Amino acid sequence: MTLQLPIKRIGIVGGGQLARMLASPCATLQVPLTVLDPMAGSPAGLVATSEQIGSLHDPRALQALVEAVDVVSFDLENVGADTLSALADAGASILPHPDVLRLIQNKWDQKQHYLKHGIPTSACRRVDGSWASVEAFGVPCVQKAEVGGYDGRGVAIIENEADWQHRLPGDTFVEAYVANAIELGVMVCCRASGELVTYDPVEMVVDPELHLLKYLLAPARIAPDVAQQARALAAQTVASFNSPGLYGVELFLTVDGTLWVNEVAPRAHNSGHHTIEACVTSQFENQLRALLDLPLGSTTLRRSAVMLNLVGAPGYVGSPVIDGLVPLLSEPDVHVHLYGKQECRPGRKMGHITVLGDSTEELVAIAEDIAATVVIRGENRQ
Amino acid sequence: MTLQLPIKRIGIVGGGQLARMLASPCATLQVPLTVLDPMAGSPAGLVATSEQIGSLHDPRALQALVEAVDVVSFDLENVGADTLSALADAGASILPHPDVLRLIQNKWDQKQHYLKHGIPTSACRRVDGSWASVEAFGVPCVQKAEVGGYDGRGVAIIENEADWQHRLPGDTFVEAYVANAIELGVMVCCRASGELVTYDPVEMVVDPELHLLKYLLAPARIAPDVAQQARALAAQTVASFNSPGLYGVELFLTVDGTLWVNEVAPRAHNSGHHTIEACVTSQFENQLRALLDLPLGSTTLRRSAVMLNLVGAPGYVGSPVIDGLVPLLSEPDVHVHLYGKQECRPGRKMGHITVLGDSTEELVAIAEDIAATVVIRGENRQ
Repeated sequence: MTLQLPIKRIGIVGGGQLARMLASPCATLQVPLTVLDPMAGSPAGLVATSEQIGSLHDPRALQALVEAVDVVSFDLENVGADTLSALADAGASILPHPDVLRLIQNKWDQKQHYLKHGIPTSACRRVDGSWASVEAFGVPCVQKAEVGGYDGRGVAIIENEADWQHRLPGDTFVEAYVANAIELGVMVCCRASGELVTYDPVEMVVDPELHLLKYLLAPARIAPDVAQQARALAAQTVASFNSPGLYGVELFLTVDGTLWVNEVAPRAHNSGHHTIEACVTSQFENQLRALLDLPLGSTTLRRSAVMLNLVGAPGYVGSPVIDGLVPLLSEPDVHVHLYGKQECRPGRKMGHITVLGDSTEELVAIAEDIAATVVIRGENRQ
Repeated sequence: MTLQLPIKRIGIVGGGQLARMLASPCATLQVPLTVLDPMAGSPAGLVATSEQIGSLHDPRALQALVEAVDVVSFDLENVGADTLSALADAGASILPHPDVLRLIQNKWDQKQHYLKHGIPTSACRRVDGSWASVEAFGVPCVQKAEVGGYDGRGVAIIENEADWQHRLPGDTFVEAYVANAIELGVMVCCRASGELVTYDPVEMVVDPELHLLKYLLAPARIAPDVAQQARALAAQTVASFNSPGLYGVELFLTVDGTLWVNEVAPRAHNSGHHTIEACVTSQFENQLRALLDLPLGSTTLRRSAVMLNLVGAPGYVGSPVIDGLVPLLSEPDVHVHLYGKQECRPGRKMGHITVLGDSTEELVAIAEDIAATVVIRGENRQ
């Protein structure tokens, strides 16, 4: 088969760090990348072949992107899915299909999809707003906004009536709180031909007090047969969407050994960042291959890895400054990624660090050390 | 130490594939990259933060680049070294120092430098143009243009008087032909602090009839102590230039086990392309770290590798098309790089392929198979 170069032109709705990291395999395979973002100079806009400026919900902006490229995908869920669905119906190549995006945008609909397809997930219920209805469901429970949640926003843990009085506004539902579960992430990629690959499950280590991700371990500290089950369940979940693309599947492994699907992101995912250095083929290269309908690459994990997000430190805003970077670079197999964001704010994801090694114990110690010494923050006190 | 982001802005004279591959670590470390090239849409210009259009010898274009960034380097030797030297003398940060570039631009001067510093290299002599003077030096020998050689141009093998009658024009010299030598390449990187790292020697496997590189093997098929000597000699050679940066050192290993320095390139080099996937830190990331004066990364080779250049097939010109790519992508640990060149011509470097594996024998077989099945060419017959 003779392929004309470039093979295809790719467009991404959203110019964040996920689209930015896709730019590297795009350059490697000579694939022009256009990103749509509301702001010029977005993380991906800075490194893409071209950027278009516009709202991610503006039908004209989305149409302009679709017309400028051959295949479109997205780097976040909060985009104009109705417009994208209409464009796909009119023949545009948008992967995963915007109907999947629309389903996933609504967490209640997503849960119903899992229940309908026999995919194990925690119990859930819409409640009428009264504390009695929540108590009847059972506490502790998790309240979730049906739409718009992201990076821990739109999720609240409800343990008692006082929590419920400060509950999330808008359309929400409650689901069972999975106590002491291990949080796993499995990246899954599939292409139009039906070829589907899964990556080794990673373990998300969460700070028990702050409920924030501390670091991610690859592979997860679970038995091989459980890892196999997690990959199979993630594959089944993605297959249920029936649309090619890259997906991040979040799972709970409960204390009694049951696997539950928590949520799915129909895009590159934070829990796959280590794949850039740790795997034969990164999540971003496989995402690109799926968009181009090329054979998918091996997901083999070369070495164990730990990945920490670099998030803006509290109390500071402004242009980013970083402490602790220089000594870190002297360590072997430490890989620093900075996202090019021009403004640092508390809690904002500014980059990540991946460390490869031979033992999980060693990597955990390194991660704790990095967390204690590397600080990214704005240059001004808030 | 608190670092402001971006750490520094980098400028590269020349927008070819070497600058293009530097763009990836630049993006990863949030380093703005500007390239100067005579043509808009050069391989690196397509993926850099910004491109400047101008001759690589034009003092005004070089000065504009120096003024737009914090540190300048180059991705080829054929650039305006006198102008760059003057800019460096006036305080611009240009690495390696343009005086090194100027020395290396002239292959005769380069040889004299090695002789002066006690670095083993093959015998050489300027001859007076008569066949008698060549015969007195000894044949077979290699005639080399003093300036302007590149990718096999400016080099001729002289075996007899007929060859000499078709000799290279201009200022040239002859050097001893090193029969049946193994050609080795060692990448060396050093930073201002004095820290210096070397990569494992690679072996350049040359087609004995066409005198063209067939593929490159990492590590080279040589004894560990010889590999150690090659690294030490390459380090000594680079140290003799006394200027930070990335260098590609080409060596001959003669049949009697002697190592000779052939030539040095003061930049990223074809013989380091495999380091992108095969080493903990790629030649490009270490080049960037050297330009930023940050600690250099580990050069450890993770797995054995073979690297083939994808060069334009004879008989065709025009927009590039490629055969044999799709089945190749199904193979594990195969990494395809395309350089974004919009015009394919016979012999033009259009990309490269790196394959990682556990045994050299297996990799050689794969390389032969790829060479027989993957063809890149222009879309039109010449």
